[in-house]
Amino acid sequence: MISVFDHPWLGGLFADEEAQAIWSPERQLSQMLAFEAAWSRALGATGRVDPDTAERAARVIEGWPADMNLLRGGTANDGLPVPALVRALKAAAGDAAEAVHVGATSQDVMDSALAMTLQHTLDLLDTRLNRLESALARADARFGQTRIMGRTRMQDALPIDAGTRFVGWASALPRHRARLAALRPRVQVVQIGGPVGDRRDIPEAMVAHVAGALGLSAGPCWHTTRDGLVECAGLMSMIAGSCGKIGQDIALMAQMQEIGIAGGGGSSAMPHKQNPIRAELLVTLARYTATQLSAIHHAQVHEQERSGAAWALEWMILPGLGVAAARSLDVAAAVIEDIEWVGGMPGPQ
Amino acid sequence: MISVFDHPWLGGLFADEEAQAIWSPERQLSQMLAFEAAWSRALGATGRVDPDTAERAARVIEGWPADMNLLRGGTANDGLPVPALVRALKAAAGDAAEAVHVGATSQDVMDSALAMTLQHTLDLLDTRLNRLESALARADARFGQTRIMGRTRMQDALPIDAGTRFVGWASALPRHRARLAALRPRVQVVQIGGPVGDRRDIPEAMVAHVAGALGLSAGPCWHTTRDGLVECAGLMSMIAGSCGKIGQDIALMAQMQEIGIAGGGGSSAMPHKQNPIRAELLVTLARYTATQLSAIHHAQVHEQERSGAAWALEWMILPGLGVAAARSLDVAAAVIEDIEWVGGMPGPQ
Amino acid sequence: MISVFDHPWLGGLFADEEAQAIWSPERQLSQMLAFEAAWSRALGATGRVDPDTAERAARVIEGWPADMNLLRGGTANDGLPVPALVRALKAAAGDAAEAVHVGATSQDVMDSALAMTLQHTLDLLDTRLNRLESALARADARFGQTRIMGRTRMQDALPIDAGTRFVGWASALPRHRARLAALRPRVQVVQIGGPVGDRRDIPEAMVAHVAGALGLSAGPCWHTTRDGLVECAGLMSMIAGSCGKIGQDIALMAQMQEIGIAGGGGSSAMPHKQNPIRAELLVTLARYTATQLSAIHHAQVHEQERSGAAWALEWMILPGLGVAAARSLDVAAAVIEDIEWVGGMPGPQ
Amino acid sequence: MISVFDHPWLGGLFADEEAQAIWSPERQLSQMLAFEAAWSRALGATGRVDPDTAERAARVIEGWPADMNLLRGGTANDGLPVPALVRALKAAAGDAAEAVHVGATSQDVMDSALAMTLQHTLDLLDTRLNRLESALARADARFGQTRIMGRTRMQDALPIDAGTRFVGWASALPRHRARLAALRPRVQVVQIGGPVGDRRDIPEAMVAHVAGALGLSAGPCWHTTRDGLVECAGLMSMIAGSCGKIGQDIALMAQMQEIGIAGGGGSSAMPHKQNPIRAELLVTLARYTATQLSAIHHAQVHEQERSGAAWALEWMILPGLGVAAARSLDVAAAVIEDIEWVGGMPGPQ
Repeated sequence: MISVFDHPWLGGLFADEEAQAIWSPERQLSQMLAFEAAWSRALGATGRVDPDTAERAARVIEGWPADMNLLRGGTANDGLPVPALVRALKAAAGDAAEAVHVGATSQDVMDSALAMTLQHTLDLLDTRLNRLESALARADARFGQTRIMGRTRMQDALPIDAGTRFVGWASALPRHRARLAALRPRVQVVQIGGPVGDRRDIPEAMVAHVAGALGLSAGPCWHTTRDGLVECAGLMSMIAGSCGKIGQDIALMAQMQEIGIAGGGGSSAMPHKQNPIRAELLVTLARYTATQLSAIHHAQVHEQERSGAAWALEWMILPGLGVAAARSLDVAAAVIEDIEWVGGMPGPQ
Repeated sequence: MISVFDHPWLGGLFADEEAQAIWSPERQLSQMLAFEAAWSRALGATGRVDPDTAERAARVIEGWPADMNLLRGGTANDGLPVPALVRALKAAAGDAAEAVHVGATSQDVMDSALAMTLQHTLDLLDTRLNRLESALARADARFGQTRIMGRTRMQDALPIDAGTRFVGWASALPRHRARLAALRPRVQVVQIGGPVGDRRDIPEAMVAHVAGALGLSAGPCWHTTRDGLVECAGLMSMIAGSCGKIGQDIALMAQMQEIGIAGGGGSSAMPHKQNPIRAELLVTLARYTATQLSAIHHAQVHEQERSGAAWALEWMILPGLGVAAARSLDVAAAVIEDIEWVGGMPGPQ
Repeated sequence: MISVFDHPWLGGLFADEEAQAIWSPERQLSQMLAFEAAWSRALGATGRVDPDTAERAARVIEGWPADMNLLRGGTANDGLPVPALVRALKAAAGDAAEAVHVGATSQDVMDSALAMTLQHTLDLLDTRLNRLESALARADARFGQTRIMGRTRMQDALPIDAGTRFVGWASALPRHRARLAALRPRVQVVQIGGPVGDRRDIPEAMVAHVAGALGLSAGPCWHTTRDGLVECAGLMSMIAGSCGKIGQDIALMAQMQEIGIAGGGGSSAMPHKQNPIRAELLVTLARYTATQLSAIHHAQVHEQERSGAAWALEWMILPGLGVAAARSLDVAAAVIEDIEWVGGMPGPQ
Repeated sequence: MISVFDHPWLGGLFADEEAQAIWSPERQLSQMLAFEAAWSRALGATGRVDPDTAERAARVIEGWPADMNLLRGGTANDGLPVPALVRALKAAAGDAAEAVHVGATSQDVMDSALAMTLQHTLDLLDTRLNRLESALARADARFGQTRIMGRTRMQDALPIDAGTRFVGWASALPRHRARLAALRPRVQVVQIGGPVGDRRDIPEAMVAHVAGALGLSAGPCWHTTRDGLVECAGLMSMIAGSCGKIGQDIALMAQMQEIGIAGGGGSSAMPHKQNPIRAELLVTLARYTATQLSAIHHAQVHEQERSGAAWALEWMILPGLGVAAARSLDVAAAVIEDIEWVGGMPGPQ
């Protein structure tokens, strides 16, 4: 449990059930199997193997009982799970083995599965961007006309409407949704290249068939051209950054007793304290994603037709980025929804 | 000369004359003055001061003799040059001082000037993305059908057409241009907020007038909502990353004697060697931007109505990012244009 | 399973059983309980509570049945597990509750537990630095006199003894061990500060007693002075970097068929290939740690008497850094031990 | 003027005259010439050329009129200045050319010059660590017994002595000085390797002679083993981080009007404000160095006998790191020395 997201108790703070389900190994495997099944059927549909054989192979693949130990051993040996998986699928397929994986390569399987994961992550982020935007609109409606002290460079400046903050916090969100929509066609793309990425002997009809079956687009091969991933990671970090700004402001408002938020954390030494732990968490997640993103940009330097080093770096970084962005939006919305008062603590009625 | 871009001899490797002109202090100052002049005229145009007075003030501002020492002293004292600049402009404007800077704040001046700088940088990047794309298309036409060894995980895999590489390298470039076009309206936006960013007493007509005069859009205040900048910085790093992949591949091809490039570097100890210094430079610049970008994402955590700390971090990072991206494109295009042979060194005829 | 270290199949490549045991939640909890028990006994030993009561409290603490759900719920509420833990321990202690945690604060518990984790990580790294150094010495003895091509800037330069590489790779290792020994007294330090870190009402004898019981030093409070952690994280990244250089060189040697290594990875598309997956993994881990370290340096900006935001960022980053450094050393040693030939592939006898 | 350190007006905030002199091109060149002169004399002293010839060559080298254009052109062509420099020195030396650079390589020259630069930077940092420590001791003596509010997680916790902060801020400084002293022998080391780093035909006496002449140690070749540099960069970032914590705390104290500091910045819009610009600058510099350091760790992956890519990345990053660390200490000491009151603003007498 090296990751706080999976940690038995730190998960209470960091975990995001929906986002983690999207990035779970079980889901990854089912998407790899979906690719292999689609590949088999595409071999049939394009006349490269007998369609019945193809269909039989696909059904075997779809029914493969996830053998995690086999995949782990294969990954230990080969650096990735697909060779062992393919051997197991071919063995299970028996005389339909000729319709399994033929002409594809490991990266086709894993990157296409990743594209599906990113699609689901983008769906979740889009929903949560909307939720946060709504929460801010409601907060603005309730508290926006309250006067609070505006501060620049950590100093009292001039009073502002609290709404200036709510509107400012919200202003990036429609832009994030526009970015998200714009990058989908650059990310939700099937990866098909074959062993060295040149699609030799892979007809475009194969690409179209597999893409269609997976709900992805049929674009050019991106095995070593990772700008779609990088852009997507950048949006994740930008989203967490927007939430981090909200968190930092709220933590500072809490310090000045200018905001009251339901919930809030207890202290083992000072039971009277209410700690703005979720506001702080937003800052933490923003700094986390700001750091992680750098690795994804480094991984653009992806040598030749496949870089084991750069590719595996993506595996280390992307899941945490995706979950952190989703968690940021969830926490930010919850904090905004839990605002009880702004400006000055209400006195006894 | 802390920066390699300005360094008297390292500049021979790193400097980018056009990009550095865009980011030069002289240009920055002229854009700050352009803002102040536009502001004065907008005060006149919206009836806040007498139009003749406004025009007189604007002309004084436009003719201000750049006093760098004054700005330096002001920055040492105030953390930024605008208060000293405004005092000087008001003094120079005499009885037109009432039409100088009234209602604006330092960040309005500097961020709007930055938006202009980014606009010019995006123009340059767009031109150079086109140049690189053309160079790759020509290289593909000349050398694309040569067979070379495809390599995955640093190992010989299967032969590919050299064109597989040229096309792969080029494939991100139209996407980068699409990103660039899409982000312009999120970046080329005037910043007008007033002291605490709430545009109190600043009519929308002021905003529209100033934006129009500067060739920027009139969007919402972005003084503490930095996602446009961050997205722009991300594109810069993505561009450098795409060039870094080209450089890494070419350096490896040079090692295998699979490519010949005119020029190339000499060695002080081994005069026979030809070093692929420009290819290596592309890798360096990609790793540089991958690192710098992280700071810009951290700077999203921009507290309250103005963060001196986060804002100044942008000043430290953005110029180098912009110049490195531009330099990457220039070097990549030059390297591609200088390819003399691919595949195997031509023997004597 | 967001982390590759815990992932059911990627763990085959990334997991490090020993290192992950050190960073496991079970071990962390047992160290937190060890702190609480030592604290109780120290209250007794320094006459602040009755020694028998103290001993009873300590035994209850040591026997606390790990209730992960309780800790998770507490963390969700309070941002960290200690308040809920302390409530449970006090309830379990009954009339010995007065000897539980009194005068300590959450950060004392968690940071002291972390110091123990870092101590065990340093022990492991030290052992493995030795193993790698020995492996390199043996490789040098076996293959060091073989001539290989020396390369600079990715180009053939002049032949060198293979030993030049082995000795070069090894040369950082004694320096790393010296750094490790030097930083131990700055890291293996008990954290005792009380609620606001001023040790008010905490006699030095308490500090000495708790430190002694935990095998840590009794130094000054470091709740917001994180340079020891940062230095330790820096060493972890430096170690992974040294291994990354080895991995990069071996991957390039493999490309030139200048080295043969037992094992090696298979390809799903090209069964004849042997992939240098462990060499690539070393590069991946080095770039991972180079990125993660940045977050730990950011976390030095730890505001006031406790920064929830900066502190939680450490929780997100340190475990992966520690495991990656340990894994790097393990993989590097294994690769070196598995070298079968250097220079040119042996022909049939 | 891409760098804020060299910028005509931003330099008023960021520039550090002493540190920038150490990193100036003029100083770098004089150190490269010092290496070449020492090398010539060492050739004479070890009987490899006639001692008189060697001395004549050394004097020509020492008197070489810095021709920056020549070095710039050479760097543009060769990726570094040394080949052009050596050609010029040989030409100037006439018949003593046989005593110029023979057996050395470019990296020997530049890395040895860098070792001298780092030595001088460490000297400066050491002096300034002392100054800051003294300033904090004096501040503690003056204001340490004032009670202020201790805050954890951005919330009022319990009152503390202001001295708790001064002592906490200071507590890392002796550790930094110990680190600095410990790393000197790992950094202040002459680099001598020859073309491929194996010191072939370079007797140890040469190494000892050159090291002695330059005030450096004679250790093993470190051309591709960069851990000394990395450790040094890590200390620079740690120092800036310690100052960043001070700056963050002071900015927050200023917000709560708990501290008064002479000087402070003006606002163009709100003349009444006093901005804690130097405190904010400390945070900026800490986040800058935390980001930059990552690149230096990436540069450990330095392939084969010389990596043009990784080496040039160091050139881009190290000067800014060194200057930022030095500037941080200078600013931190100045801020502490300028404290006028702590706790509550003194009223009229």
